[in-house]
Amino acid sequence: MTASAPAPAATPPPPYWAVIFTSLRTPGDHGYAQTAAAMVELGARQPGYLGIESARDADGLGITVSYWASLDAIAAGKAVGDHLAAQRAGRARWYRAYTTRIARVERAYGFSADDAAR
Amino acid sequence: MTASAPAPAATPPPPYWAVIFTSLRTPGDHGYAQTAAAMVELGARQPGYLGIESARDADGLGITVSYWASLDAIAAGKAVGDHLAAQRAGRARWYRAYTTRIARVERAYGFSADDAAR
Repeated sequence: MTASAPAPAATPPPPYWAVIFTSLRTPGDHGYAQTAAAMVELGARQPGYLGIESARDADGLGITVSYWASLDAIAAGKAVGDHLAAQRAGRARWYRAYTTRIARVERAYGFSADDAAR
Repeated sequence: MTASAPAPAATPPPPYWAVIFTSLRTPGDHGYAQTAAAMVELGARQPGYLGIESARDADGLGITVSYWASLDAIAAGKAVGDHLAAQRAGRARWYRAYTTRIARVERAYGFSADDAAR
């Protein structure tokens, strides 16, 4: 699964962890698109990675939620991501503002027309 | 604050709760835009509401995260939202797929260029 896959992530039953990253971009790319794609690819190869969902509005607000099996998996994934971002000029150039929230998913439920049609 | 406010939600220090709603729209509006706006407005008036962030990609994947002081506040907000959606033809017409995840936010940190410039 990649960041642009147009579907909710197929996560296992809770509990698991979510990293909710909400951001407002600066104008211009500054190497962002390439680095974001590399970070998604790198993240997906980390142990404990469960999936990712990402959307960015026309007005510049973006939300990326990645799912992880444990806090240790989040910490390892963050170290890899921070290193890559630092190498490539960094977040201060890409974002006007961002908030990262780490949350424990306790319940999940959903609906898919594809499942319903089976 | 509304769903379209282009900034991360200004939430208090953790712990608090997040409802992560990831969805894939069906083609066409079917009364969706108006109902979504009404739900956001109604939600913001519920006790324990802390804020909302929302983004939808050009490819149709949307992520809305609402923040709440407690599980009780989420349950009350959900009852109000479900009632409104049911009145207006409902989610099965609007969404090809959706997943709702309820998560307890344990940590949060961020950056804002506006704060940094102060």
